[in-house]
Amino acid sequence: MTDSGEFVGKLNQLREWIRENREFDIIDSFSTLHAADIAELIDHLAEQEKIRLFSLLEVEKASDVILELSDQSKEEILSDLSNRQIAEIIDEMDSDDAADLIAELPEDQARAILEKIEPEESEDLKELLKYEEDTAGGLMQSEMVTVPSDATIRQALQAVVDASEEIGNVYNVFVVEADRKLIGVVPLQKLVASRRNDPVADAIDRSIPSVLVDVDQEEVARMFEKYDLVSLPVVDAGNHLLGRITVDDIVDVMEEETSEDLYRIAGLQEDDSILSPPMESVKKRLPWLFLNLFTAFASVIVIGAFEDTLQVMVVLALFMPVVAGLGGNAGSQTLTLVVRGLAIGEVNSTNSWKAVLRQLLVGIVNGVAVGGLVGLIAWYWKGLPILGLVLCLAMILNIFVGTLIGTLIPLGLKWFKADPALGSQIFITAFTDSFGFLSFLGLATLFLKLLT
Amino acid sequence: MTDSGEFVGKLNQLREWIRENREFDIIDSFSTLHAADIAELIDHLAEQEKIRLFSLLEVEKASDVILELSDQSKEEILSDLSNRQIAEIIDEMDSDDAADLIAELPEDQARAILEKIEPEESEDLKELLKYEEDTAGGLMQSEMVTVPSDATIRQALQAVVDASEEIGNVYNVFVVEADRKLIGVVPLQKLVASRRNDPVADAIDRSIPSVLVDVDQEEVARMFEKYDLVSLPVVDAGNHLLGRITVDDIVDVMEEETSEDLYRIAGLQEDDSILSPPMESVKKRLPWLFLNLFTAFASVIVIGAFEDTLQVMVVLALFMPVVAGLGGNAGSQTLTLVVRGLAIGEVNSTNSWKAVLRQLLVGIVNGVAVGGLVGLIAWYWKGLPILGLVLCLAMILNIFVGTLIGTLIPLGLKWFKADPALGSQIFITAFTDSFGFLSFLGLATLFLKLLT
Repeated sequence: MTDSGEFVGKLNQLREWIRENREFDIIDSFSTLHAADIAELIDHLAEQEKIRLFSLLEVEKASDVILELSDQSKEEILSDLSNRQIAEIIDEMDSDDAADLIAELPEDQARAILEKIEPEESEDLKELLKYEEDTAGGLMQSEMVTVPSDATIRQALQAVVDASEEIGNVYNVFVVEADRKLIGVVPLQKLVASRRNDPVADAIDRSIPSVLVDVDQEEVARMFEKYDLVSLPVVDAGNHLLGRITVDDIVDVMEEETSEDLYRIAGLQEDDSILSPPMESVKKRLPWLFLNLFTAFASVIVIGAFEDTLQVMVVLALFMPVVAGLGGNAGSQTLTLVVRGLAIGEVNSTNSWKAVLRQLLVGIVNGVAVGGLVGLIAWYWKGLPILGLVLCLAMILNIFVGTLIGTLIPLGLKWFKADPALGSQIFITAFTDSFGFLSFLGLATLFLKLLT
Repeated sequence: MTDSGEFVGKLNQLREWIRENREFDIIDSFSTLHAADIAELIDHLAEQEKIRLFSLLEVEKASDVILELSDQSKEEILSDLSNRQIAEIIDEMDSDDAADLIAELPEDQARAILEKIEPEESEDLKELLKYEEDTAGGLMQSEMVTVPSDATIRQALQAVVDASEEIGNVYNVFVVEADRKLIGVVPLQKLVASRRNDPVADAIDRSIPSVLVDVDQEEVARMFEKYDLVSLPVVDAGNHLLGRITVDDIVDVMEEETSEDLYRIAGLQEDDSILSPPMESVKKRLPWLFLNLFTAFASVIVIGAFEDTLQVMVVLALFMPVVAGLGGNAGSQTLTLVVRGLAIGEVNSTNSWKAVLRQLLVGIVNGVAVGGLVGLIAWYWKGLPILGLVLCLAMILNIFVGTLIGTLIPLGLKWFKADPALGSQIFITAFTDSFGFLSFLGLATLFLKLLT
C-alpha cells in the first residue's frame, strides 16, 4: 500500500463502512491485508473509529497489528481494553514484543496482566523485563530452536519442524552443550544442504558471532551490519545462551538511533513528532529554547562590553551576523561529521587525534578563503580598509574556532560517556556567536585605539 | 573485534609481522578472522602495507574483504591490481556486489574486466548495470532459488540443496510460472516444516510482497521495515522475477540514507568524512560556506537599512543575536522533525497540512513564552520598556516565522522532487536571521518614530 492515492481510497471506504456499520465488509477486507497495512489505516482514523476497528480483529491478528501502530494509537486502544484482553493479545506475541509492550504499561497494570498470562510465558517475560531496553537483552526473544551438540542434521531439522507451530522467523538453529553453553550457529540453508546423518556440529558457521547480553543496541546494530547477520545469539558472561535477536528488530533500532542523532543535534526530545499534539510538542521543545536563550545571553554580554566601539563605528553591527553565522556553519559541518563518525564507529580512540588535526587544517583553509573574500568585499563596499582587515581576521579566527569546537564537543561528550549529539547545535551556536562577536568587536576596538 | 584495546594490539602485531616479512604468521592469523575484521585492520594501515597484506589473501577471501574496505583503501588496492586479478575477484562475488564494484571503475577498465569474466556472469552483470544505483534494480542480485509452480516441497528442497554450492544467504525460494512470472515466496522454514509431497504452491507466504525494479531504495528499505522482511523479490512491470534483495543490503542502505539526511541538513557532501584528506574536505565544504556567505549578506543589507536607528539606540545591537538565534533554533527543531517525518513516511500528502497547522500552533506558543521572558528581562535590565516590548514582539514574530519556514522548506523541496534536507540548515538560518533583524529593528524604528 505504497501508493498514496490507493491508500486514501481505502481509508475513505473504511470510514464509510464504519458509519454504515458494515462489519462483515471490514472483516473481509482485513483478511487479505498485512497487519502493518491495517495498522497504517487505523493510525489515520479518529479515536472512536480506531477502537471500533480494532475490536473487529481476531486476537492473533490484533497482536500483530498492535505492534505496528503509532504510539498514540497504541495508547488510545490499550486504554480501552481490559487487562484480560491485553493478556490474550500478549499471549500471542513473541517474547521480545510482549516484554516491550508490558514495559510501556503502568506498573500495577503490568503486574496484573503478567498474572493472567500462562505461567511459563510469564516467567520468560519477567526474565526479559530485567534487561535494559536499549541493550542486547532488551532486544532479544527467548523463542528459538536449540539442539544438543551430539545431534545429527536429521534431528536438527526435526527440531525446526517441531518448533514451527510456535516459533516464526527461524533462520538458524543454535547448537548448545547440556548446560546451555553455546557451541555455535547453523543456518537453515546449511541444515537443508547437509547430509542427514552428519553431526550438526560439523555444519556450524564459524563466521556468526554471539553478543553479550548487556551490550548497547547501537553496538548490536553495528555487528549486524558488519557481519551481514539475520539472527544473532545472545549469551551471558559464562557463554550460556539466553536468547536471539533477529534482523527485523535491528532495522527498527537503526531507524530509532537515526532519529535520536538527528533530534539531539537539533535539540529535540526523542518522542516528539511532526504530528504530536501541539501542547505536548511545546512542553518538549521549550526547555531547549530556554537553554538556547540562556546561552544566547553570552552574546548579549559580549556585545554589551563593546557598546562604545559600536557607538563610534555602527557599521560594525552590519557584519556581526556574518562573522557569527559562518563560524557556526563551519562548526555544524564538522560536528555532524564527528557525530556520524562516532555513530558508525569510524572514529575511535586510536584515530580521534588524527581527526581533530585534519579538521583543524580544514578550518584554517576554509577560514582564510571565506574571511579573505568577505574582508575584500567589506573594504571595497564601505571604503574602510580597517573594517575589511578586522572582518577578515575575525572570520579566520571564528571559522577555526567553530571547527575546533565542532570536533571537541562531541568527542568531549563521548569521553564523559554522554551522547555525542546531545543538544550540540545549541552549544556550537552559543560558542561561535559569542566568540565571533568577541573577536570581531575586540579586534575593531584594538585597531581603533591604535589608530587614534 | 569490538574491544579497541584488542584491536590496537592486533594492529601492532600485524605491522611488526609485515616489517619482519613473517608472511606465514599473517596468513595463519587471517584464516580465523572474519573478512570484515580483516578489512578493518587493512583500513588502518599505510598504503604500501595495505597492498602487501591484500596480496596475501586467497581470491575467495579477497573478494569478501574488498567489499568491506573503506572507499579509500579500496581505491588504493584496486589501482595496484591488474584487470585479470580484479576479474578473478569479481568472479567470486555475488552479482549485486560485483555490479557495484564495476560501476565504480573507469569505463574503459570496466569494459576490459567484463570481457575477462565468465560469459554467463558477464551477461548478468551487464543486465544489472543498466539499473540506477539507488533503486531496487541497483540493489538486487540475480542469484536466487526459483522453482516452478507445479513442483513439490521435496523438489523445492532439492533445488535449495543444488544451489547451495553457488548461492549463499538463501532464506526463501521463489515460485514462478514458465515465463518467470512470480507466483509467490516460500520461506525456508516453511519448506522444512511442510510435508514433502505437498505442492510448493500451497506453502506460499502471502504476507511477503514484491517490489518493482525502479522503486527508490529508500522506499525499498521502508518495505523491509514495515513488513519485517529478510529477502524481497524484484519484478518488472509484467511481474516477471528479475532478482532478489536481501536484508544485509538494506541495513547498508539505511546507514547510507541516514548519513545523507544528516549531511544535507548541515550542508555537507555525502562522501565527506571525518578522516578525508583535508584538501578534499575543503573542496567539498567551501561551496556550502560560500552559499552561506551569500545568504548572510541578506542580513547585512537588512541591518544596513536601519543604521540610523542603531546609531540612536545602540543597545539594540546587543539583542539582535537573541532574536535571530532563537528563531533559527525553533526553525531547526521543526525542520528536523519534518525531514525525519518525510524520511520515515510519517508525513505524506494527506496529512501535511495538518502537520503545518500543528507546527504553527507550537510556534505561536513557544514564541509567546520565550519572547515574553526575554522582553521582561531586557526591560528590567536596561530600564527601557520600549526595548522590552519591541524585543518581545520581534521574538514572537521570528519564532513563528522560523517554525513556518522550517515546515515549508522541506515540504516545498519535496514538492519540487528535490531532497527535503538539502542544505536546509543554511536556508533556515538565512531566513530567520534576516527576518529577525527586520522585525526587531523595523519595530524599534517604528516605535522610536511614534515616541518622538
